[in-house]
Amino acid sequence: MKTSQREIKRSHSILDHSPEEVVTLLKKHELRISILGLGRIGLPTAAVFAEAGARVTGIDIDEEVVRQTNAGISRLTDEPGLDLVVKKNVAEGRLSATLRPETMLHDSDFIVMCVPTPVDLAKSPDYGAIRAVSHSVGKSLTKGSIVIVESTVGPGVVEDIVGSIIESESGMKAGRDFGLASCPERSDPGSIMKNMHSVPRIVGSTDVHCGDLVAALYREGLGVEVVRVSSPKAANAVKLTENLFRDVNIALANEFALLYEKFGIDTVEVINACATKYNFMPHYPGAGVGGPCLPSNSYYLINEGIKLGNIPYLIRLAREVNDRMPDHMVELTAEALNEIGRTVSGARIAVLGIAYKPDVKDIQLSPIERIITRLREMHAVIEVYDPMFAGEEAMGLIVHKTMEDAVRGANCVIVGTAHAEFKKINLASLSRMTARKAAIVDGRGVFVPADAKKAGFAFRGVGRVALSAFRPDTRPTASTSRQA
Amino acid sequence: MKTSQREIKRSHSILDHSPEEVVTLLKKHELRISILGLGRIGLPTAAVFAEAGARVTGIDIDEEVVRQTNAGISRLTDEPGLDLVVKKNVAEGRLSATLRPETMLHDSDFIVMCVPTPVDLAKSPDYGAIRAVSHSVGKSLTKGSIVIVESTVGPGVVEDIVGSIIESESGMKAGRDFGLASCPERSDPGSIMKNMHSVPRIVGSTDVHCGDLVAALYREGLGVEVVRVSSPKAANAVKLTENLFRDVNIALANEFALLYEKFGIDTVEVINACATKYNFMPHYPGAGVGGPCLPSNSYYLINEGIKLGNIPYLIRLAREVNDRMPDHMVELTAEALNEIGRTVSGARIAVLGIAYKPDVKDIQLSPIERIITRLREMHAVIEVYDPMFAGEEAMGLIVHKTMEDAVRGANCVIVGTAHAEFKKINLASLSRMTARKAAIVDGRGVFVPADAKKAGFAFRGVGRVALSAFRPDTRPTASTSRQA
Repeated sequence: MKTSQREIKRSHSILDHSPEEVVTLLKKHELRISILGLGRIGLPTAAVFAEAGARVTGIDIDEEVVRQTNAGISRLTDEPGLDLVVKKNVAEGRLSATLRPETMLHDSDFIVMCVPTPVDLAKSPDYGAIRAVSHSVGKSLTKGSIVIVESTVGPGVVEDIVGSIIESESGMKAGRDFGLASCPERSDPGSIMKNMHSVPRIVGSTDVHCGDLVAALYREGLGVEVVRVSSPKAANAVKLTENLFRDVNIALANEFALLYEKFGIDTVEVINACATKYNFMPHYPGAGVGGPCLPSNSYYLINEGIKLGNIPYLIRLAREVNDRMPDHMVELTAEALNEIGRTVSGARIAVLGIAYKPDVKDIQLSPIERIITRLREMHAVIEVYDPMFAGEEAMGLIVHKTMEDAVRGANCVIVGTAHAEFKKINLASLSRMTARKAAIVDGRGVFVPADAKKAGFAFRGVGRVALSAFRPDTRPTASTSRQA
Repeated sequence: MKTSQREIKRSHSILDHSPEEVVTLLKKHELRISILGLGRIGLPTAAVFAEAGARVTGIDIDEEVVRQTNAGISRLTDEPGLDLVVKKNVAEGRLSATLRPETMLHDSDFIVMCVPTPVDLAKSPDYGAIRAVSHSVGKSLTKGSIVIVESTVGPGVVEDIVGSIIESESGMKAGRDFGLASCPERSDPGSIMKNMHSVPRIVGSTDVHCGDLVAALYREGLGVEVVRVSSPKAANAVKLTENLFRDVNIALANEFALLYEKFGIDTVEVINACATKYNFMPHYPGAGVGGPCLPSNSYYLINEGIKLGNIPYLIRLAREVNDRMPDHMVELTAEALNEIGRTVSGARIAVLGIAYKPDVKDIQLSPIERIITRLREMHAVIEVYDPMFAGEEAMGLIVHKTMEDAVRGANCVIVGTAHAEFKKINLASLSRMTARKAAIVDGRGVFVPADAKKAGFAFRGVGRVALSAFRPDTRPTASTSRQA
């Protein structure tokens, strides 16, 4: 039954209300939402719900984050559109942040967990933050509230860890005394604000009514389609399945790249041609896979799988293929330097791009760090430029302020990230900056191999045909090696 | 330069002509094409080029195929639209077939190889047919002809096997005395005529002019876009890359299915939800992967990779995952029968669908054969129904003429193929045909698990939650097992 704004009798328990009433309360600025974690997902989520009309409190353990947020400042300078929404909603009093969760949680209709779920060095999922906030929530929870987990977790973690902790802390029962739902975030860093308003959300909950209310909140608050699935664990499986699809397909592209380099076939040409078939989706090879999601997500599933006696070998192998791409970059670098008569030791190498993806200020698990570490171990002199970190310190190095500063006199230029700035590089100009004999190792398909050769470089690229201004063709191809 | 029909001075060598002249010759019924192999690709290709105006000779080693073709009959009854095109072009004298290639090959502008390239029992590529026709072509080739390979082969096979054999037999040189190109077929069985006129073709050739002529032939003859790549081996890599993309992604879906069954999560629900994300492409789990392409194609690349010291582990593992799905079907069958108190031994099992894909009359490498073999080894009584083979003998069994005949009194119904007829099955009617206590094992996502339970069956399906009319929930899920 549709209820007009006037008729609502506000209960302290949001579970007593209908989906239509959730929408009305949101519009009337009477819906109270707590967001746990003000990181790359939490802050935009808080800002967007506030913009939709909710009274939002962001909770974080980082004092600086809380201070900045309350000052109306977004640290995420690489998320277009976010700064204005944060500023406006703080100014209008709908968005604030705090270090102390107790009172806010007690007073919330919806409590949304947006905390990180990394893996440790042994690739074991670290649910420490999820556990910590679950304890906080359990201690302060009011009957009738709804807890939503947006963090990416293994199937069963919401029911068995989040749910169990809250139940034992609060003495309440999920699905009866409080609502418990998964609504995994589905946004890509750098495009969070755009994705948040366009990518459908997946909702799985312990009971149908709770799911109806969560669906109403996201549908109205973000303006997106909501897809219902039968449980929180099914929703978490959706998130993992779509991210692992990407990780496995990048690994497959990398496997093709390693083969096609040996065959003397251009992998990028091949993949672009494949993309003309109706049932193919292109993924490209590269220097490795980084960021907060793909390098970790597989392990949530592997971990749960092993517990049930079922190891996902394919997913695990794909992860390993991707993890080894930085080593392949080092191999290509040594090969390219060798071609111009140099060892890695003593070579001046300019690394262009350290961020894990284009045009994002983020080096979380960036594969470029491993490339730099290994080349430094081999006594290369590394100069770094990345437009997102210009003049800052990153990976233990000072990032040059301009590309020219990094590239000047270099024996080798490595492309680590396909930032927009690098796609515009004029190879003739580049060759005037580098040493007279210089190599390019392209980890991101930014250059056309023949153009690099023409501009006077020895060229190597992941999945590309080896070309060189110094030798006609240095790698045996399938046909030359077999005809010999 | 565009040449009008009147101006062409016909050379015996097609390589002396321009692309525009190829088009004109085609329209004037003066282009002579030989197609080697009149199978699922060769016959439609021959028919379509004849329909476009060429004088086409099909060459096959099977007397019956040659006889039928010359009678205007297509054996491929599951390829809509093909029969009429064959009939018409034979009647109008543009399409004929022969067992003896010599004269025809001598007289051809284009020679198109459409012979099968299977793998042997040890999964080693069998290029016997490709070698045989290459010898034939080499012996009879006229200078200036163009040889096109449509068969799916490993990168380098066109250059190193086809090219080398023709060169040594003819004493001519590829790229100078005759043209050599790869233009891999990209059609799916059951949709060949549709795909042939819509899916862009990939052309890679030994020299640019030859590629221009091949591109003109396919563009005009099939009415499709042509994508040029830099070599025959690159074109072959495109074909393998797109097919392996599919094989690996089906394997990934199967890996998710095996895990999610254990978690008590419905894989089909999960994949359908994933499909709402812009960068996801759905593939579904199932009883296994069959047909002339996917079970073999990986090995062409694995084989070439190993020769160059580079094993594509991911592609190989994916193949193995898919190859083991029939065993999983047997496991599900034993489990479902167990639930109704029966052993496999002595159980009456109705297998619905033996074709490797829906609505196609083809059991090449169908995974259902392995399921049947293993269940028979365990002394099950197997009854089979498949609408494409009704009343015929297949897999050593007589296929029943109706579904009811196969299902009557069955203890278990296995869905092996998602034929259209099976998607319409009414479960209540089905349960009246089977034994009183009966199980369903759905290998193709044809049924909704809850509906099967409601109709009184014990239900198992690849990637589905185990449900049963006889027990509430027989499989431990992640949460029940961990909470215990």
